[in-house]
Amino acid sequence: MKTRVEAEAIEKELLEDYKFGRQQLIEIWGHASAMAVTKVFPLPSLPRKQPTVLVVCGPDQNGAIGLVCARHLRVFEYEPTIFYPKRSLNSLYRDFTTQCEKMDIPFLSYLPTEVQLINDAYNVVIDAILGADAEPGEVKEPYTSILATLKQIRIPIVSLDVPSGWDVETGNSEGISPDVLVSLAAPKQCATRFLGRHHILAGRFLPYDVQKKFELNLPEYPGTECVVSL
Amino acid sequence: MKTRVEAEAIEKELLEDYKFGRQQLIEIWGHASAMAVTKVFPLPSLPRKQPTVLVVCGPDQNGAIGLVCARHLRVFEYEPTIFYPKRSLNSLYRDFTTQCEKMDIPFLSYLPTEVQLINDAYNVVIDAILGADAEPGEVKEPYTSILATLKQIRIPIVSLDVPSGWDVETGNSEGISPDVLVSLAAPKQCATRFLGRHHILAGRFLPYDVQKKFELNLPEYPGTECVVSL
Repeated sequence: MKTRVEAEAIEKELLEDYKFGRQQLIEIWGHASAMAVTKVFPLPSLPRKQPTVLVVCGPDQNGAIGLVCARHLRVFEYEPTIFYPKRSLNSLYRDFTTQCEKMDIPFLSYLPTEVQLINDAYNVVIDAILGADAEPGEVKEPYTSILATLKQIRIPIVSLDVPSGWDVETGNSEGISPDVLVSLAAPKQCATRFLGRHHILAGRFLPYDVQKKFELNLPEYPGTECVVSL
Repeated sequence: MKTRVEAEAIEKELLEDYKFGRQQLIEIWGHASAMAVTKVFPLPSLPRKQPTVLVVCGPDQNGAIGLVCARHLRVFEYEPTIFYPKRSLNSLYRDFTTQCEKMDIPFLSYLPTEVQLINDAYNVVIDAILGADAEPGEVKEPYTSILATLKQIRIPIVSLDVPSGWDVETGNSEGISPDVLVSLAAPKQCATRFLGRHHILAGRFLPYDVQKKFELNLPEYPGTECVVSL
């Protein structure tokens, strides 16, 4: 279970020493997140007639991973809708946005505050809002309102890496309660506070030396799968 | 079945209109190529005691896809060795090389001309040499010698996208005879001349509008698989 400082050090090592590209990491993590969603919510299991999924994307890297996740879900024949209230000017994130737009994935212009509308329209909500990037005390609008809405919905929430509003280390008992946590690369310390049904590790590409150096003790991924249940 | 001009037009559309990144495409295709290898040659099926695979990489994009393929095979617990006689100065390809080097994948400094040494040491050879980039008449050293060696080996060859030495459209009856052809995105016209055991389509991410525009008539990928047998 990694602290914020350790998680940042792992990402730095991947980018600087191993020369992984940020575009490459986001693609790998987004694809693996989509695979995690398909494992927990396979198409035939969805309660609604349409295989709708709402993907809520934040302004930074976690949001970009959400965009890639939505694109792969579309390819897997789900019907994702994206809510991306503050689009980044970062050209890398803009390119991921264009890929979704050009693939005809609809973007919502606002999130209904009437929670029942979300419960009725979607099977699952994917929380790709803040991830490990934001400190809970610093959450601002529009994300404070979005989190308040997500705390009330009754359909399952899948959080990518760190549930939005949680502290990377201490979690947040007042925050949202995802049903599924998808830990990227390695679980963050707050995962010990996770009480949902499925904790999934995603992103099977970490070099063995990185796993050893940071004492990650990750479980073995089965066969050629890119996700494993914890 | 796509001509060289059509294949180039598809890649141009993905890069320019859809804003896919080259790093992203190479990562997706390399991962899918590794998945194709694991489907045809699962670990328990390999004849040698060590799960060795020789990955021969050319100077351009096909070689970079080979590097990514080797990295994923390592993660899947194969033992890839890379032969990459002419390293590109392109910083993108250099980064993919660094990822392999830092993950302790061995690089050969030369290819044995004694064919029996290759037959004895490896289970499979992956041909990521020229792909669709080179015209057969223009193949130069060291690749002419490498192709002459590959024509003599008896272990199976997996060619990525286009068997090296083949023309994208007309193939080449004098060229190498791969056992497995992994077509990336869509089969090239030369695939009609392929007489090996397994033709696999890899890279499940093509936007539906691109498939329609270029009349690709691709088969359905099963479940969430990124490869499908043709």
